[in-house]
Amino acid sequence: MTPLQLHTYQTPNGHKAAIMLEETGLPYRVHVVDIEAGAQHHPEFLALNPNNKIPVIVDPDRGRVVVESGAILFYLAERAGVLVPASEDERLATLQWTLFQAAHVGPSLGQLWNFKIFATDKIPTVIERFERESRRVLGVLNGALAARSHLAGSYGIADVMTWPWIHAAVTRIGLTLDAVPHLARWHAEVAARPAVQRGIAVPSLQHEQAA
Amino acid sequence: MTPLQLHTYQTPNGHKAAIMLEETGLPYRVHVVDIEAGAQHHPEFLALNPNNKIPVIVDPDRGRVVVESGAILFYLAERAGVLVPASEDERLATLQWTLFQAAHVGPSLGQLWNFKIFATDKIPTVIERFERESRRVLGVLNGALAARSHLAGSYGIADVMTWPWIHAAVTRIGLTLDAVPHLARWHAEVAARPAVQRGIAVPSLQHEQAA
Ligand SMILES: N[C@@H](CCC(=O)N[C@@H](CS)C(=O)NCC(=O)O)C(=O)O
Ligand SMILES: N[C@@H](CCC(=O)N[C@@H](CS)C(=O)NCC(=O)O)C(=O)O
Repeated sequence: MTPLQLHTYQTPNGHKAAIMLEETGLPYRVHVVDIEAGAQHHPEFLALNPNNKIPVIVDPDRGRVVVESGAILFYLAERAGVLVPASEDERLATLQWTLFQAAHVGPSLGQLWNFKIFATDKIPTVIERFERESRRVLGVLNGALAARSHLAGSYGIADVMTWPWIHAAVTRIGLTLDAVPHLARWHAEVAARPAVQRGIAVPSLQHEQAA
Repeated sequence: MTPLQLHTYQTPNGHKAAIMLEETGLPYRVHVVDIEAGAQHHPEFLALNPNNKIPVIVDPDRGRVVVESGAILFYLAERAGVLVPASEDERLATLQWTLFQAAHVGPSLGQLWNFKIFATDKIPTVIERFERESRRVLGVLNGALAARSHLAGSYGIADVMTWPWIHAAVTRIGLTLDAVPHLARWHAEVAARPAVQRGIAVPSLQHEQAA
């Protein structure tokens, strides 16, 4: 097949797509979209995603452009027949945890990242709001992972969707997993997967230079 | 079939589920979860949704509990065979717009609602941030609806997912649709559907009194 085109950057949402590509083994090429330089607002990129966000996947053989990381993960899993939910229950659980990531994990940690780390004006009440909400969300994940090894049953789409944000929470947003041991166990286990290691290295310096 | 149990409250996310139930014609009973009184933190409710959020659907005949409004909409559509995406392209577009609602429309408007309307301490820079982001999101929807009548092709899950938040933007968050005429046209068209009218009346005063 013609390689898929991955438009991405070195961020948690970008890593979801890169990890899934590595898990599936589908051939792909990387296009670096330097969102720190505003490349997501260029007309060629907006034609792919009017929401000016990475990641985006282009599948030349099927003539498809896929945006929204959750949709990308389902698309790639089905395209390759890898990590596809094995039962109706697992499919429904996968959809629920994928939406929980999109609606709660990403937005809470994303706002905390902004107000705690990026904002020049640090507003304690606002930082506290998103820190409290982020901890609550980590607690929900911890509760789910107390009851089973992975979010939706066996390792799959929901874990790939969530892991890069938990990794960012620890490595970039200054949170710890001390109070959430089941989440910490899962974070370490998923981190050890070779596809995850390769995925979080995308885009690499080499891709940046080619861009 | 045994009626579905809808645990909900008078909010945009609750309305998504109620509208879809009305669209499908599936039998259901309403359980009011008074989130203003903290009922979402009661142990019986947390057993249904550890994320302490409405809406929740219980399907007694299938022994299923479904949380996350996006998953609920897919579940109900498939359960009834109504508003199920008609093609692979439509299914993918539906998933993408459902995730766009979960990740962008809901969180942006939700934070704006909080900081602009609910918060006692009004912080101009924070209100501006979420107002700007909300307008950007409305613009993305407007662009999509300039090109077609409904978000994912024909009327369906993605519209039910998004409409209650656009309605709240106008009726409760103090935004207008003046700058986004295609979104305004869609908002009015969807509002005129009888199932939508019935759905946004759930829970009614009658349900509240029975609770
Ligand atoms: N809901 C989207 C979120 C994607 C997203 O927020 N991407 C960020 C990087 S992690 C981005 O492209 N930001 C650029 C911008 O907002 O201008 C998804 O899951 O794909
Ligand atoms: N991502 C969830 C969000 C649901 C949600 O935020 N529900 C609100 C009402 S609109 C809620 O139950 N809030 C109670 C709380 O947060 O304590 C969904 O789409 O179902």
